Amino acid sequence: MSTENEKVAIIGGTGPQGKGLALRLAMAGTQVILGSRDAAKAQQVAQTLTAQLAERGVQAEITGLSMEAATQAADSMVILSVPYSAHDATLDALKPLLAGKILVDIVVPLAPGNPKAVEMPAAGSVTEHAQIVLGESIPVVGALHNVSAITLNDLSRPINCDILVCGNDLASKKSVIGLIESMGTKAYNAGLAESARCIEAITPILIRLNISKDVPFSHAGIAICPPEH
Amino acid sequence: MSTENEKVAIIGGTGPQGKGLALRLAMAGTQVILGSRDAAKAQQVAQTLTAQLAERGVQAEITGLSMEAATQAADSMVILSVPYSAHDATLDALKPLLAGKILVDIVVPLAPGNPKAVEMPAAGSVTEHAQIVLGESIPVVGALHNVSAITLNDLSRPINCDILVCGNDLASKKSVIGLIESMGTKAYNAGLAESARCIEAITPILIRLNISKDVPFSHAGIAICPPEH
Repeated sequence: MSTENEKVAIIGGTGPQGKGLALRLAMAGTQVILGSRDAAKAQQVAQTLTAQLAERGVQAEITGLSMEAATQAADSMVILSVPYSAHDATLDALKPLLAGKILVDIVVPLAPGNPKAVEMPAAGSVTEHAQIVLGESIPVVGALHNVSAITLNDLSRPINCDILVCGNDLASKKSVIGLIESMGTKAYNAGLAESARCIEAITPILIRLNISKDVPFSHAGIAICPPEH
Repeated sequence: MSTENEKVAIIGGTGPQGKGLALRLAMAGTQVILGSRDAAKAQQVAQTLTAQLAERGVQAEITGLSMEAATQAADSMVILSVPYSAHDATLDALKPLLAGKILVDIVVPLAPGNPKAVEMPAAGSVTEHAQIVLGESIPVVGALHNVSAITLNDLSRPINCDILVCGNDLASKKSVIGLIESMGTKAYNAGLAESARCIEAITPILIRLNISKDVPFSHAGIAICPPEH
């Protein structure tokens, strides 16, 4: 599936994860709309990212708007990339604007003060919680939990890891997988939304490895290994 | 750490996962004791595996005993590799024999009739449940959940994936990591026992990929990817 010229919103797009995603998606030809509570800040960051890509010879289309306007401007996919503490309030605010669109939830419920642990919501995972909040008519796809902001922002390297994608609506997952793979990485359909209980919880394990002295690297990701590996 | 000549028990060692582990560990110089409810079957399987390795020119030390005798014969590590349905009864039976030893729990709580899902015990994961059953004096280490039996048994290839190891006792985890790495794969300390909620749940996602037509391979594993990947 081509995602060229697709308009995708990134809510929380002025944070490190959102900025990295914006850069990678814009490089792949996607029109990116950063959404922030502070529209002026979103606009400013959009200009900075556009200039950063121009320096690399990439003609990018990144703009900045309020969260609400960004959501409305998206063609079919709205990526939610806010801190977990802002997740529910953001979802409540955007719900009336999401009809006919896919919410791509990339939020990880890291425990307050302890990024080496998760505190899962009662629904089992953030993805499942978001699906309950939005109701079945707005498909939620969980994705991009395990790729570090530093990896996304380091444009000198390809994305080093695979992406696990989950959700209850297969067509929506396929759209999101297409968008992710346009960034040059491999994405896998990892099953129903309940798989997010596992996928979201991989992140604190990676953070643990990244800050541990046991491993000679940081910004670890995960990959699916075929036997040929 | 050298695990050469270490005597390690594999309870449920006559199943596919147990046999594959026995082969890999024996190739690395570990003395393997298969434990089964049926000691005669354990002995028979041990002979078959020993012969299989002899054909490859490997002088292996694999023996077979009852579950109880195998547990008692182990130096310091007892690997529990039974179907989930037999997990709790086996643990109860072996508990009095495990003093001074590490239980390496590799059991995944696959949902009955649906290997694409897990049904976690109330404790959060099998590893945490086992730690509660055995009490804090017997350390439980969760490991080897995500490597397929087919991968382990295919001695023509190295193990294609990394191993995530978790548990509440660091020294025990280090011993288990040493044992696993003797098989030529990389093992990571993935944190406390509660990380097993994630690690055990990776297995059904891999099973899903393996039986899906979306991927061009089966027997998938996972790997930790540094940026250099």
